[in-house]
Amino acid sequence: MRRGIFITFEGPDGAGKSTIISMVARQLKNALLTREPGGIDIAEQIRRVILDRENTAMDPRTEALLYAAARRQHLVERVKPALEEGKIVLCDRFVDSSLAYQGYARGLGIEEVWTINQFAIEQMMPDITIYFDIEPEIGLKRINQNKGREINRLDLEDLEFHQKVREGYHILLERFSNRMVKINASESIEEVFQKTLQMIEKRLAEK
Amino acid sequence: MRRGIFITFEGPDGAGKSTIISMVARQLKNALLTREPGGIDIAEQIRRVILDRENTAMDPRTEALLYAAARRQHLVERVKPALEEGKIVLCDRFVDSSLAYQGYARGLGIEEVWTINQFAIEQMMPDITIYFDIEPEIGLKRINQNKGREINRLDLEDLEFHQKVREGYHILLERFSNRMVKINASESIEEVFQKTLQMIEKRLAEK
Repeated sequence: MRRGIFITFEGPDGAGKSTIISMVARQLKNALLTREPGGIDIAEQIRRVILDRENTAMDPRTEALLYAAARRQHLVERVKPALEEGKIVLCDRFVDSSLAYQGYARGLGIEEVWTINQFAIEQMMPDITIYFDIEPEIGLKRINQNKGREINRLDLEDLEFHQKVREGYHILLERFSNRMVKINASESIEEVFQKTLQMIEKRLAEK
Repeated sequence: MRRGIFITFEGPDGAGKSTIISMVARQLKNALLTREPGGIDIAEQIRRVILDRENTAMDPRTEALLYAAARRQHLVERVKPALEEGKIVLCDRFVDSSLAYQGYARGLGIEEVWTINQFAIEQMMPDITIYFDIEPEIGLKRINQNKGREINRLDLEDLEFHQKVREGYHILLERFSNRMVKINASESIEEVFQKTLQMIEKRLAEK
């Protein structure tokens, strides 16, 4: 049974992640672009519980378990079958988002969040994870330019949080140095795209 | 801050568990009787995803993560505040159900299911867990007497499964020998009740 390639993409909003992934998907033959919950019914139901604005009492650990549950179901129903067909699966965010955001930035602990995610994914780790690195200030400016407004007080709170997220990702880069590669996302979209493609083609060639 | 007592009850259906717990709750002052999801809104929403009959594609690991998520929320919103008020919390099923049913009988592995449940409950383990032990055949007969029917083929499949569940509980009894006590539930309700009460009062006296 030929196994495909599993590639995940990480980084903050405003790094151009979605744009680049779409460009990569168009470039590669036999690619599947997905993200959790990805239209998987059970994963969508779980996601609705997470995102329900009424659920203000949700404990951070409950939330982390729900993310892991939705991840498991998306992995089993969408990612695994595609890999078994030999596809290149491009997944917008995966375990590292939980580790950086909930584990590190929200303070649950990278190790603890990693433990429940290992239960969720078993051995199905990505072959390669591309992390789009950007100064939070620059990412924030890009988002605000899209929204056509200035940076406000809430954005500055966001800024501190996103600095923590970035620190978290940098810890993961060291820990998972065989799997994760960093790309400087403050360059132009075209440059970032070309570098991303090179990284992927290099890895495909090794396979 | 005075801390209450956290008591959980385990065992198969048909062991008379619910009846005994209600009798215990009436006997003790300052007791809170509860079970997951226990009317906690977020936990109820999660439970609905688990129990939805349409969700036939649900992976066993997704299910285990959802049980752990509902458990976390019920613990934080109901059990913990009651313990902080000094109450005696009587909880019908807790982590050991996940370990015996999903970890052992369904084959996910006791260790693996224990890991995600430790994340869910942190250090909030029960002070005492009372396990109602009964031969699956006897438990099954009791359930069928309540339904007014004979044992059929599906019941026999159930029987094999419940034998595995019982094996699982016996493994837990050894592992958690400081916390778990076994009561022979094939005796009369009155006898089981008296023994349960003695166990609890002994533990309360030690406190």
